[in-house]
Amino acid sequence: ASFDPEDNMPRHLVPGVYVPTPCFFDPVTEDLDTATIASHAVRLAQAGVVGLATQGSNGEAVHLTHSERQTVTSTTRSALNSAGFSHIPIIVGCGAQSVRETVQYCREAYAVGGDYALVLPPAYYAGLFAPASASVIEFFQTVADQSPIPILIYNYPGAVSGMDLSSDVIIQLSAHPNIVGVKLTCGNTGKLNRIVAATKGTKSSKPQSSSAAPPFLVLGGSADFTMQSLIGGGHGILAGLANISPKACIEIMRLYREGNFAEAQEMQEVVARGDWTAIQGGIVSTKSGMQSWLGYGGYSRSPLPRPTSEQNAKWKEGFRELFALEKSL
Amino acid sequence: ASFDPEDNMPRHLVPGVYVPTPCFFDPVTEDLDTATIASHAVRLAQAGVVGLATQGSNGEAVHLTHSERQTVTSTTRSALNSAGFSHIPIIVGCGAQSVRETVQYCREAYAVGGDYALVLPPAYYAGLFAPASASVIEFFQTVADQSPIPILIYNYPGAVSGMDLSSDVIIQLSAHPNIVGVKLTCGNTGKLNRIVAATKGTKSSKPQSSSAAPPFLVLGGSADFTMQSLIGGGHGILAGLANISPKACIEIMRLYREGNFAEAQEMQEVVARGDWTAIQGGIVSTKSGMQSWLGYGGYSRSPLPRPTSEQNAKWKEGFRELFALEKSL
Amino acid sequence: ASFDPEDNMPRHLVPGVYVPTPCFFDPVTEDLDTATIASHAVRLAQAGVVGLATQGSNGEAVHLTHSERQTVTSTTRSALNSAGFSHIPIIVGCGAQSVRETVQYCREAYAVGGDYALVLPPAYYAGLFAPASASVIEFFQTVADQSPIPILIYNYPGAVSGMDLSSDVIIQLSAHPNIVGVKLTCGNTGKLNRIVAATKGTKSSKPQSSSAAPPFLVLGGSADFTMQSLIGGGHGILAGLANISPKACIEIMRLYREGNFAEAQEMQEVVARGDWTAIQGGIVSTKSGMQSWLGYGGYSRSPLPRPTSEQNAKWKEGFRELFALEKSL
Amino acid sequence: ASFDPEDNMPRHLVPGVYVPTPCFFDPVTEDLDTATIASHAVRLAQAGVVGLATQGSNGEAVHLTHSERQTVTSTTRSALNSAGFSHIPIIVGCGAQSVRETVQYCREAYAVGGDYALVLPPAYYAGLFAPASASVIEFFQTVADQSPIPILIYNYPGAVSGMDLSSDVIIQLSAHPNIVGVKLTCGNTGKLNRIVAATKGTKSSKPQSSSAAPPFLVLGGSADFTMQSLIGGGHGILAGLANISPKACIEIMRLYREGNFAEAQEMQEVVARGDWTAIQGGIVSTKSGMQSWLGYGGYSRSPLPRPTSEQNAKWKEGFRELFALEKSL
Repeated sequence: ASFDPEDNMPRHLVPGVYVPTPCFFDPVTEDLDTATIASHAVRLAQAGVVGLATQGSNGEAVHLTHSERQTVTSTTRSALNSAGFSHIPIIVGCGAQSVRETVQYCREAYAVGGDYALVLPPAYYAGLFAPASASVIEFFQTVADQSPIPILIYNYPGAVSGMDLSSDVIIQLSAHPNIVGVKLTCGNTGKLNRIVAATKGTKSSKPQSSSAAPPFLVLGGSADFTMQSLIGGGHGILAGLANISPKACIEIMRLYREGNFAEAQEMQEVVARGDWTAIQGGIVSTKSGMQSWLGYGGYSRSPLPRPTSEQNAKWKEGFRELFALEKSL
Repeated sequence: ASFDPEDNMPRHLVPGVYVPTPCFFDPVTEDLDTATIASHAVRLAQAGVVGLATQGSNGEAVHLTHSERQTVTSTTRSALNSAGFSHIPIIVGCGAQSVRETVQYCREAYAVGGDYALVLPPAYYAGLFAPASASVIEFFQTVADQSPIPILIYNYPGAVSGMDLSSDVIIQLSAHPNIVGVKLTCGNTGKLNRIVAATKGTKSSKPQSSSAAPPFLVLGGSADFTMQSLIGGGHGILAGLANISPKACIEIMRLYREGNFAEAQEMQEVVARGDWTAIQGGIVSTKSGMQSWLGYGGYSRSPLPRPTSEQNAKWKEGFRELFALEKSL
Repeated sequence: ASFDPEDNMPRHLVPGVYVPTPCFFDPVTEDLDTATIASHAVRLAQAGVVGLATQGSNGEAVHLTHSERQTVTSTTRSALNSAGFSHIPIIVGCGAQSVRETVQYCREAYAVGGDYALVLPPAYYAGLFAPASASVIEFFQTVADQSPIPILIYNYPGAVSGMDLSSDVIIQLSAHPNIVGVKLTCGNTGKLNRIVAATKGTKSSKPQSSSAAPPFLVLGGSADFTMQSLIGGGHGILAGLANISPKACIEIMRLYREGNFAEAQEMQEVVARGDWTAIQGGIVSTKSGMQSWLGYGGYSRSPLPRPTSEQNAKWKEGFRELFALEKSL
Repeated sequence: ASFDPEDNMPRHLVPGVYVPTPCFFDPVTEDLDTATIASHAVRLAQAGVVGLATQGSNGEAVHLTHSERQTVTSTTRSALNSAGFSHIPIIVGCGAQSVRETVQYCREAYAVGGDYALVLPPAYYAGLFAPASASVIEFFQTVADQSPIPILIYNYPGAVSGMDLSSDVIIQLSAHPNIVGVKLTCGNTGKLNRIVAATKGTKSSKPQSSSAAPPFLVLGGSADFTMQSLIGGGHGILAGLANISPKACIEIMRLYREGNFAEAQEMQEVVARGDWTAIQGGIVSTKSGMQSWLGYGGYSRSPLPRPTSEQNAKWKEGFRELFALEKSL
């Protein structure tokens, strides 16, 4: 409530590690646990990530009301500001089925300090789009026209009945002045190569050397292919695993940029192994692992199941190596 | 605002034709067009349908806010009451991803005169349910425990990433006192046969002879297999095509119950042909056909496309035979 | 080898129950068990089915060589002839990815006494067909032009990466003089209604009264919606469950034709319950049930698993009611 | 016929570019065009690729008889030998639905000089595998036990109804002495990272520096993510685009190994752009592009469509940049 929209200072999307934060809940009431939302955000910022994303799949966006979403984002913004991280941008998940509600989410995000909107394509009526890509392109362009904050395209076929945006579509959308990046959770790095090639603007002979904001931000959607995103000219990752091991993810990028590929590969291997537990169990295993190793995390909203003790034990073990690495950094 | 929750009189779900009404919008602002919502509801009631459903797929539920959904349902309730159809129940689409929001929709539906809730299973995180059916069963049971109005299960795999509830799951759920029926949009009539057999309670030697409310209502989800729903012991249909041809759908049931199969089949053929246009073009072609033949219908909310003139012409032709039949009844 | 191609007498496809027979194997060598193939075919003919189908999904066509397929069909033909069932037609599964191999299967089927070819659409390269339906239509027409025996279209999306032939496509194909029917394993009875309406030629005021071969044979692909196929004007079923309960399937049709719907429905319910075990476990549970209740059946070829004793017990129980009914008929 | 099985000399799978060759046909009869099969193989060997694969998806394996497959492989082997490339291995696509036929393909491949077998998991009855991975693992292990030539796992979900082998399954299978590699057409480079980490045996501080055969060969399945395969420790690619631009693919690897990332990236971009045409049009566009730019290629077997003149023009243009690059190398 105390947030001042005038605080919307320009926060650039620089290369680096971005984290889609979980939403935390009271284990009994399932109400928002704003204290943990705040402290987790600060932990990540202190670890060195360059941006946070609220209301991604890990953030259980589909389980939150409009008002709760605003609380999560404003809590995150306030926590970052209070801890000296007012320069860190917040990307807010704003996907919805209609242009109207998507724009509403963008405006609500802006109103509480969100800097960018991460937008999934609508898919509920995809069978009625004709031709498909034309409707999708028009959707993103119309949203971008009306949104007070810039848009990042969220390509995650698994969340939208298999709808997979092609490099052609994403490249066409990148021409819109208010569409400024893409998160590729599809894992298709050939697509990433085409998108980077088409959007990078000026060529540089040194890969990833710059820390400046690129004209069009291209992020890998999982930590297990961080190096692959970078070698294709991508600018970093927006990856759920960074909730568990922000420093390890950052370190892969640092080693890579230094040209220390052998060490980067070794760390990438540990991260890819840990990510396998996160990929299989999603937010449920991520929270379980956090609870086991960090002492907080809790449960997701129903109907997401609460882990059995066998699952907790298995997932604790699955993250053991990665938490050990993280602690050492 | 003028709706009195005390008006929640008991309205039973009797065998017959149910219609998932479209939501109508102003063509410029895309705001709700409550006048058309009201008049269309009355037209259907006058044609003899036994129930309406707001906020199904045809009702563009995913394009509406909580508040708009309440407006649609209360407008429909008031229109029915004013026109002398206060006995006709309204089923309200209430599916959401969380137990919490689903229950909220049920309560909001109840608050504005909704009689039953039609609930899709949650699917966004289906990969994290384990085992799948246990989470789904628990979801429905918890919602049914908390909802002020009874629940109908909505089995529509095409709307929930392919999640198809088995006869085992539906039969298990039918034991809950507050779960009172199912809409089978899957079109699997073998499943329908198993569900009816397990839930019909007392056997009757005459098919569909009764107009009393069955212990568990089983409805086919499309008009093109109306007779197939009936021959399996189903109690009717909840079908979008009945927006266009309520009387023809009702007439199939009447002829079938009279044992006049040959005429019922002839009418079923016309309905199945007309439904093909509605199935292919969904709510977009349904509204187009209504506009062409009834003078109202309008457009869906963006990003659903507005038909080209070629599409309007093709769909008008596709519904020609069916509208001629409807007019003759 | 002793089969005489001149024996290809005309065998019409009359309304009734058709059975896709399993292929039986030696449990040690996995070689063909021709003795059981022969005796099972005769058992079904004695029960009153009007046709058999070799090399369907239940016949493990994809596990058989060209030469083995011919042995299965010729063994079946000889067994039927020797037992006095030379009038019963054999439909042979002939689907393949290329026009060339599909035609080869048709010719090989003809050479050993096959009467009709059941053909799946090719799907391996479906993404390269453009537009999809044009390539599929041309495939069937070219095969039909070159095949020495008439073609039945096999619409089974589950077997071909989801490719689901529409009523438009099937109706268009029905115009070819050598395409004479369709098996609808999709279970879409609205589609069945449209196909029957478009292909039945002359109208009859009495449903299914005739035992004459229809101009275009429309068969339901599962026993659990037998009545639904009939009420839509379909001519019967081609259903794996009839391997277990041919008489019960036939009895449903007889009762239906007599207008005895109540008893037909009761029997349909038992069949639909039994079919649920067959649908879930496919050929593996079907063979297990046959082994438990009939003393033969054996195993499928690897990699299809051999059932555990728990599975055998569960599936035996799942078929108990149906076998009791079958024995009583 | 003149091939001598004794010629099966050991040919190791070294890091580099592998090419799944198309199968060429007479444009009128659709019979094998062995002259073009031979000359194309030699062209690729001269360009410097380290291995060929017959009977992949590009090789239209599903359109070929057992005997034709042997002709294609023996023709390729003879052509390579005659041109001085007897050291280049041939990988032969051997996937089939049964263990029995898969092993038969492996033996037939061996008999005509095939060195390795590329094996897809069986998927037709995947719904009956239980639990899925156990049946798949047993399938591969049994085939590997019985095959006279070593096995490479082919992970291509798009070809097998979406079945996607996890890193766990592939790592477990890599322990079999006769399973020696994997082709990852899934494009999942996180999975690649886990597989390489688990199978590389001895660590090397220099990436990809060695030209020796690795203990377990991990290949990317498309040229558009060549660098991503390498940075993860993969040993190269087995990619259809290398039919068009073998030298460009090889050059990416050379530049990468030299540490010349900027130039490697530039070339990767051109390759990724060209690959987009090949990915969209598959073997149809690949042959069209070869015909336009190399003067041979021809058509695929029916029902794969023959391109329209518009398609030929579009695809010629789509490959223009890549062919220009290739010619310059």
